Amino acid sequence: MAFEQRIEAAMAAAIARGQGSEAPSKLATALDYAVTPGGARIRPTLLLSVATACGDDRPALSDAAAVALELIHCASLVHDDLPCFDDAEIRRGKPTVHRAYSEPLAILTGDSLIVMGFEVLARAAADQPQRALQLVTALAVRTGMPMGICAGQGWESESQINLSAYHRAKTGALFIAATQMGAIAAGYEAEPWEELGSRIGEAFQVADDLRDALCDAETLGKPAGQDEIHARPNAVREYGVDGAAKRLKDILGGAIASIPSCPGEAMLAEMVRRYAEKIVPAQVAARV
Amino acid sequence: MAFEQRIEAAMAAAIARGQGSEAPSKLATALDYAVTPGGARIRPTLLLSVATACGDDRPALSDAAAVALELIHCASLVHDDLPCFDDAEIRRGKPTVHRAYSEPLAILTGDSLIVMGFEVLARAAADQPQRALQLVTALAVRTGMPMGICAGQGWESESQINLSAYHRAKTGALFIAATQMGAIAAGYEAEPWEELGSRIGEAFQVADDLRDALCDAETLGKPAGQDEIHARPNAVREYGVDGAAKRLKDILGGAIASIPSCPGEAMLAEMVRRYAEKIVPAQVAARV
Repeated sequence: MAFEQRIEAAMAAAIARGQGSEAPSKLATALDYAVTPGGARIRPTLLLSVATACGDDRPALSDAAAVALELIHCASLVHDDLPCFDDAEIRRGKPTVHRAYSEPLAILTGDSLIVMGFEVLARAAADQPQRALQLVTALAVRTGMPMGICAGQGWESESQINLSAYHRAKTGALFIAATQMGAIAAGYEAEPWEELGSRIGEAFQVADDLRDALCDAETLGKPAGQDEIHARPNAVREYGVDGAAKRLKDILGGAIASIPSCPGEAMLAEMVRRYAEKIVPAQVAARV
Repeated sequence: MAFEQRIEAAMAAAIARGQGSEAPSKLATALDYAVTPGGARIRPTLLLSVATACGDDRPALSDAAAVALELIHCASLVHDDLPCFDDAEIRRGKPTVHRAYSEPLAILTGDSLIVMGFEVLARAAADQPQRALQLVTALAVRTGMPMGICAGQGWESESQINLSAYHRAKTGALFIAATQMGAIAAGYEAEPWEELGSRIGEAFQVADDLRDALCDAETLGKPAGQDEIHARPNAVREYGVDGAAKRLKDILGGAIASIPSCPGEAMLAEMVRRYAEKIVPAQVAARV
């Protein structure tokens, strides 16, 4: 089955389990609203790519890992969109969860999706309890404190920002989770996969900075120019458009070079190359 | 070591791991602020009581389970206190997290504590991976959707409330988690322990309703009369003070009768009796 179908099928099953006849119906539908239609599902796709490159001998566990990671990502979007953070009206082309439902339901949706992520991993353990526990730990480390996406968002409340810790946590963390969890699900060591995730995360951040600076809200499916408005660090402000575009290319080259030895090494390198083509905005691709 | 010391030592270790030199400092201190000084630590104490009654052959795992449960409870308090829910100023006699820090940091504190709960369980697995995974599942089921505390809070956004589902999820869930996780940590089946947790949760709810109706803010350490203000279901409104007090006594009797067979059955019954004396407000104890 293609990655996309695997992800959507496993995601739908997880959300269905979170609903049930005894559940409060608004919150139950909000869970589904928050995860569909999906965005590009970049993180779970990367996770399944790494798992496949490592042999993917427990596909059900890989699927669970992919869904757990995407649930955490979706939860973070719901919370980041709240009035006290970005106060975003639109996400993936439709009203944000707190706009469509309410602020209380948006907070509970995020909370429920986080919990669901860990539940999905525990339930998929089957004959590989050690891998499942490693997946829980890897996901928790990249989600919470002191160096997960919660930490990343927390940096925005500091008067003095440690920029490298901020970026590593805010954007890098879930890409590192993607490569490491893909490896763990297939029975590989996590540690050698950190660099690949870290570099892809960095590339994604620079590409996002370029899009935020160059694209309009319709192309983005969310408000543009947000970094400027919120005075957030942005590679385009730091290096200019051409500088940021060159940096993006260098990072992706480094990412490919960092791929650990595994049966599907060449396939994975090709996948990162295709990914690079996809994330570079058209206006920039013409310039590098 | 006494339960209280075991809980506080394990809690301090978990919070310390969430801090670290690379962490954003406000969020790092907010985590500690949210869990200390603890309240009565009723849920983790109940968990350790059940684990002890079941032989407690893996005390480090029991401690992790107790801390995980309390972290989730503290997270729920931080989120429930937010302006869009209870808009509470005071909790455990000091300003709530969003008042002391900010709303963004309160949301992130709750998120981080939830994640930390699952991480603590995964890291404590050692030679008992199956128990650890069962603990993750049990905690997730009683925290998220469709029947955990998130679901319980979600019911407050519905125009028609399923009262029994609401109470079971809102207050009962973490007491059921306490008894079941205590049993699991010590290698016992979870299912027979549901009723004890459910009845203690119900008793706690009725006792809380009595306190909310009878005590002042200073005694409570939080605003009084909140159920009346928020038009929430309350046993005193339903049965009157004497009716609610009688109900509380009946429920606790049923709780003791429901204790499954285990080496420490008598000790556990005594512990529930002492707990009952503690939760009944003095004004009520004189009347039953």
